[in-house]
Amino acid sequence: MPGRLIVFEGVEGGGKTTQLERSRQWLIESGWLAFLQSNGWVQQLVVTREPGGTDLGKGLRQLLLHSTQEPIQDRAELLLYAADRAQHVEGVLRPHLTENSLILCDRYTDSTIAYQGYGRGLDPTLIKQLNHIATNGLQSNLTFWLDLDVKTGLDRTHQRGKADRIEQADLNFHERVQQGFAALAQAHPHRIARINATQPEAAVFQEIQAILSDRLTKWYGKRA
Amino acid sequence: MPGRLIVFEGVEGGGKTTQLERSRQWLIESGWLAFLQSNGWVQQLVVTREPGGTDLGKGLRQLLLHSTQEPIQDRAELLLYAADRAQHVEGVLRPHLTENSLILCDRYTDSTIAYQGYGRGLDPTLIKQLNHIATNGLQSNLTFWLDLDVKTGLDRTHQRGKADRIEQADLNFHERVQQGFAALAQAHPHRIARINATQPEAAVFQEIQAILSDRLTKWYGKRA
Repeated sequence: MPGRLIVFEGVEGGGKTTQLERSRQWLIESGWLAFLQSNGWVQQLVVTREPGGTDLGKGLRQLLLHSTQEPIQDRAELLLYAADRAQHVEGVLRPHLTENSLILCDRYTDSTIAYQGYGRGLDPTLIKQLNHIATNGLQSNLTFWLDLDVKTGLDRTHQRGKADRIEQADLNFHERVQQGFAALAQAHPHRIARINATQPEAAVFQEIQAILSDRLTKWYGKRA
Repeated sequence: MPGRLIVFEGVEGGGKTTQLERSRQWLIESGWLAFLQSNGWVQQLVVTREPGGTDLGKGLRQLLLHSTQEPIQDRAELLLYAADRAQHVEGVLRPHLTENSLILCDRYTDSTIAYQGYGRGLDPTLIKQLNHIATNGLQSNLTFWLDLDVKTGLDRTHQRGKADRIEQADLNFHERVQQGFAALAQAHPHRIARINATQPEAAVFQEIQAILSDRLTKWYGKRA
């Protein structure tokens, strides 16, 4: 039985990282992980992220941020992110899936479509092609889209001290990203589960936990 | 009138760099460049190379050679080279072509097909797709394929002190690369001009010069 890839997506301030960590803890504390492991169905529980889930990715990020004096061309940037993803998919995700692990991943292909395609307006066909090349067709088995009002999300990140004030341009950009996630969720209703992330943290996790339980049961059978 | 992209390709030891430099000098000394410039048909004569024709490319090369502890996946490597090419095409080649310059470039897309595809056996469809994405369809107007016997070429580079002795595996690899260039030349007879590079340097340049004169006349008209 192959592993499963579970992804957390959404605009800033939706609580991706928090909910991913809650999910990890719940898989352990609920006994699900022990049950799956004792039956030999799951090897490990793996937590990872994109971009930056590999050494190469970290080097690329440095390169993008610091080391060049010339402006990076849009196409070159998309190809660099795709290289990071290819390294992550072939070096991390696929080996863990082959050895039947359960993976929780912070962002994946949908973020590229939403941020680069919808947000920045880069060629959607090109992005789709590059996602396909980078992943070699590897899709998530389940993606949680933490959906919340863009303004609320930005307010939350700003309270964490990430920036001084919300620019209108910033707001417009994030609105377009949000539309991207909404379009993806509509196009892939089975793969992408929309979560109302405007609720308090605990209520958000209730929704996630219910879906996780349901999917685990579908994938591996009822827990003994 | 747009510029023109002239590329020099071939296996090691074929004299690409030397012949490119001879071509540059000849364009100046023959009066062709002055003629084209005085008519306003050509802006500059530009010399460049792949990989490494941009700052980003230099940074990527460092990254590939030094900075990661994990093995670089094949797909990631192809995407990194494609990023370098995209940066070079959009940041260097296309702007110069737009301003009507004549470009002499050491290696371009055919090298990727010959070395990564034929030589290393990576997926040819993927390479073709990535070349297309990276160049956004920009092809050379004329490519000189400096064709010489692989063994002779490697002997020449080894005399330059690049390595101690020729390994059989090395020879087999370069034979496959050579087959790649031959297949490309056969498939694109108008774009790729085969040059017999086994001859002495001056004779090789005679062939190149004849073709250059012919093409310049076709592109820009007879020199006054």
